[in-house]
Amino acid sequence: MLAHRLIERKRDGGRIDPGEWRALALAYAKGHVPDYQMAALLMACFLRGLDRSETAALTEAMLQSGERLELGHIGKARIDKHSTGGVGDKVSLVLAPLIASLGVAVPMMSGRSLGHTGGTLDKLESIPGFRTNLSLAEAAAQIEKLGCAMIGQSPEIAPADKKMYALRDATATVESIPLIAASIMSKKLAEDLTGLVLDMKRGSGAFIPELDRVLELADVMIKLGEDHGCPCVALVTAMDRPLGRACGNALEVEEAVAALKGEGPPDLMSVTYALGAEMLVLAGAAADVDVARREMEKSIGTGRAAECFQRIIEAQGGNPGVVEDPAVLPQAAECELFAAPRRGFVARIEPKRIGRAIIELGGGRTKVEDVTDPTVGFVITARPGDWVDAGEPLATIFARDRSGIATGRNGLRAAITIADEAEPPLPLISHRVTSAGAALFSNE
Amino acid sequence: MLAHRLIERKRDGGRIDPGEWRALALAYAKGHVPDYQMAALLMACFLRGLDRSETAALTEAMLQSGERLELGHIGKARIDKHSTGGVGDKVSLVLAPLIASLGVAVPMMSGRSLGHTGGTLDKLESIPGFRTNLSLAEAAAQIEKLGCAMIGQSPEIAPADKKMYALRDATATVESIPLIAASIMSKKLAEDLTGLVLDMKRGSGAFIPELDRVLELADVMIKLGEDHGCPCVALVTAMDRPLGRACGNALEVEEAVAALKGEGPPDLMSVTYALGAEMLVLAGAAADVDVARREMEKSIGTGRAAECFQRIIEAQGGNPGVVEDPAVLPQAAECELFAAPRRGFVARIEPKRIGRAIIELGGGRTKVEDVTDPTVGFVITARPGDWVDAGEPLATIFARDRSGIATGRNGLRAAITIADEAEPPLPLISHRVTSAGAALFSNE
Repeated sequence: MLAHRLIERKRDGGRIDPGEWRALALAYAKGHVPDYQMAALLMACFLRGLDRSETAALTEAMLQSGERLELGHIGKARIDKHSTGGVGDKVSLVLAPLIASLGVAVPMMSGRSLGHTGGTLDKLESIPGFRTNLSLAEAAAQIEKLGCAMIGQSPEIAPADKKMYALRDATATVESIPLIAASIMSKKLAEDLTGLVLDMKRGSGAFIPELDRVLELADVMIKLGEDHGCPCVALVTAMDRPLGRACGNALEVEEAVAALKGEGPPDLMSVTYALGAEMLVLAGAAADVDVARREMEKSIGTGRAAECFQRIIEAQGGNPGVVEDPAVLPQAAECELFAAPRRGFVARIEPKRIGRAIIELGGGRTKVEDVTDPTVGFVITARPGDWVDAGEPLATIFARDRSGIATGRNGLRAAITIADEAEPPLPLISHRVTSAGAALFSNE
Repeated sequence: MLAHRLIERKRDGGRIDPGEWRALALAYAKGHVPDYQMAALLMACFLRGLDRSETAALTEAMLQSGERLELGHIGKARIDKHSTGGVGDKVSLVLAPLIASLGVAVPMMSGRSLGHTGGTLDKLESIPGFRTNLSLAEAAAQIEKLGCAMIGQSPEIAPADKKMYALRDATATVESIPLIAASIMSKKLAEDLTGLVLDMKRGSGAFIPELDRVLELADVMIKLGEDHGCPCVALVTAMDRPLGRACGNALEVEEAVAALKGEGPPDLMSVTYALGAEMLVLAGAAADVDVARREMEKSIGTGRAAECFQRIIEAQGGNPGVVEDPAVLPQAAECELFAAPRRGFVARIEPKRIGRAIIELGGGRTKVEDVTDPTVGFVITARPGDWVDAGEPLATIFARDRSGIATGRNGLRAAITIADEAEPPLPLISHRVTSAGAALFSNE
């Protein structure tokens, strides 16, 4: 009866109280509220909205439905980075060891790929032996020892959110700002953080393409963090093209390793340094972003960051040799260059089409249960704005077989537009958002 | 994937095409679309609305999901009456035999009580032996022979609607005009009618209390009927007080039998004659409502209407002796007069409270599975506007035991308001609605 009353109230534009959200989330997590009632409520929430205090109550209710990491005793700042998701976004793989190498704890809980975007867990699991399913106790112990663990959302973390997210995915209720914010923050706050940096993707390849809605989501999440004593800073970054060159799980690990050695592509390095600087400043480990940036460059230059990644991989059962020699990663059976079909400017490289092509190659998911092939994907060397001649190589396709190469070729043809005029891409990092509001990002 | 796409489109205010509704209703009836997706879609429909052609397509899709009566060969007009539901509404029990006795076929498919309103099936089943679960073939044969069958919604009729209605009940998506209209009309159109008369209840005891929404619902249903070649007329009648005196299944059968003998209470007779006149005119069995009324009075006066009820009861396995002697109905173990607690005007007799008191006495349902006691209820002799002295009898309570009498007394105390001033009740019949629009009802 509780659920029926709450659906009715939200349907009519009313508010649900904190105690009601708590009771509902618990009852739902325990299976006492059926999916069909929750689905009706979620659609009512989607269309009627949640105000700030309701969003906070839902976040708290989902957080309270499970366990959390307990890290207070380690006596270090604990900072994580969250990205709203994109194509080629391997920043977490670089940032986690980099920031941990500078004395800040990074309890990083990540997700799997779904739809056209990649997932950090799938990327990590392309490293032979790498385990992401640590228990909370194992993760806490590793964070205490190495400063970092890179894990999945364990079943004990925010189970109400986990169940609700799967339901939203099936009922077209994903793209709601309060529901997205509550879902992300209920998991992040379970990491027992002292600060959080948000990478808010914008552009055609982002879940929320429009800048105004991205800024609104950032604002809601920052306020949720604030309400829980977890200061947050957000950067708005471009997802109108893939980030870096590699797109595909093992290919992205290889690029992340290169970045940890100072050899990453410029856009990946810029985003990594910008987000990392915010993490270090939030942690109190650097006085300002310039100092932070120099510290990061030093850690990369001396090999400390790469070494830290090695130790994390080893601790989580993976083959640490990957840092020395990426050839230990599984390799695609076939690869082939993709040439420019005509002469002109690279006008667009559409991330959604790249992401969908990876799914068609077997490297992504359309359903949660899908198994992904880590070897397939693309390394796209062309950048929007480049002038290219017909036949000039733009990318390399990695596939399981010849038919995969053909699939990949079709995918790239659809994704990459060559035109007579260049189209201005979005600025790589456009805004910085804090609890005080949004400002244009000024750096580089 | 179909369901997800349709949810998304309706969520964003778009339209669902006839072919899509058809595919969806069929898939849902077969269990290929899960309840949670349908629940999200229903909430989106509730909040975004359906336009006329979508409502028609949904009606058609639910109709097509099952079988229908086949009555074309009997060569008679086939007219039914549908009421949106109320307390004390035993009109169907009187009308079906009355109209059938005048040579018009009445294929009457009715529902069970749910919530505070009564259901014709439960009333009929208080007649010992009466079967309402005839197969469609049995019903068709009986209609051909006797001109009438009074049955429940068989599992073959509009299965998609049946499943969807149960889901709407659990997900607070009942009170949507297009969804209500499509649900009612998908069942009514399965009766293979040549005309339909709608009794649209308004007032505090109706599912939709507000006149403007009642008129809107009538308009939508009339247009749906028209689209299917089934002309409809609606009368708007009062449900701010119970109709007639008897409230409770067996008690209402007794009152209906009295009405068929010309001894029904005036309000019940007025509503019955007004709806019946519309049925006879729609059937072409009377030139106008005055002629129709005289025909009905004659059928009642000569005993033909009561005799027709007897034959229907007998054909459906019930004890036809009930028409001669209502004492064959099950009788309550206890009964007691209820006296006016003070002197004054009967200001209100609240149908919802009467209906809920019947549920508390064991005579109604809060869940579909509940078993109802046919004997309990009230006979309320007081009418709104009456002047009463303290201690004057207003009603009789019928219950299973002494504690039921106390429950009934509390129910009546809450339902009946005695005040220093009378409150004007709603006009018994206020509007007549046709495809040309609504007009004030002018009669009596």
